[in-house]
Amino acid sequence: MKHFIFLTFLFATKMAFSQTTDTDISKTIIALEKAALEKWNQGNPSGYLDIYAKDITYFDPFHEKRIDGFEKMQAYYETLRGTIHVDKYEMIAPVVQITGKIAVLTYNLKSYSGTVIYHWNCTEVYRQQSDKQWKIIHNHWSLVKPLG
Amino acid sequence: MKHFIFLTFLFATKMAFSQTTDTDISKTIIALEKAALEKWNQGNPSGYLDIYAKDITYFDPFHEKRIDGFEKMQAYYETLRGTIHVDKYEMIAPVVQITGKIAVLTYNLKSYSGTVIYHWNCTEVYRQQSDKQWKIIHNHWSLVKPLG
Repeated sequence: MKHFIFLTFLFATKMAFSQTTDTDISKTIIALEKAALEKWNQGNPSGYLDIYAKDITYFDPFHEKRIDGFEKMQAYYETLRGTIHVDKYEMIAPVVQITGKIAVLTYNLKSYSGTVIYHWNCTEVYRQQSDKQWKIIHNHWSLVKPLG
Repeated sequence: MKHFIFLTFLFATKMAFSQTTDTDISKTIIALEKAALEKWNQGNPSGYLDIYAKDITYFDPFHEKRIDGFEKMQAYYETLRGTIHVDKYEMIAPVVQITGKIAVLTYNLKSYSGTVIYHWNCTEVYRQQSDKQWKIIHNHWSLVKPLG
């Protein structure tokens, strides 16, 4: 009986630890994004490049057309290396919408650079790869109220 | 033997028709988007409201913060009913990235309204519901090069 209880306990523990909840995935995704963003804020685009998938699609306010594919993103981001200096940021109200191997992260961002504050809308679509790593397949940056 | 061949043919035909390819999904998604957009261009937001999911998250250039949930989107879009008049549009280079029940549609859009041409970046994340219908769980609109 003792053995049975012990084994049941072990099994229940293992179950508890092996189950990945949506909350776990949300935390993982937000941590990935913050790590990439913090490198970006220091002028280092490698944080994002490390988690961009081969088939990434990308929008930002500085391009007339969508950018498609990792190679083009790498070429673009390398032109920005060392040029970005954000002193402080606020990731506002991040939400992660999870469906199977896709997690859609959206948030508002305030980036403080000297006396200027940039207000951004951000969409990141993460996909879990076969090696369990999450990579970004779509990224959309836009400026909040650029018309106003 | 004749019967066997006939049945094999029937079975193969059924297989061919019941298999949904990524190309089929892409066509479905683009058709849904165009139908909603064409209503929108005539001042009718119901096309989008009909395919917005309950848990939709939404960005556009006119709001300081992300809008969350169908009810808030409905309230917002009803304020725009009858106010939009787009004479002509071009959906440029739509791409659909499919993973399981998620299809990420991105495109550039030119909207011609009188003598003005608006240039948009558009992201739509569609999710296939249990009834097989596709609904939008995230929508991000931004203006191209608003800084320039």
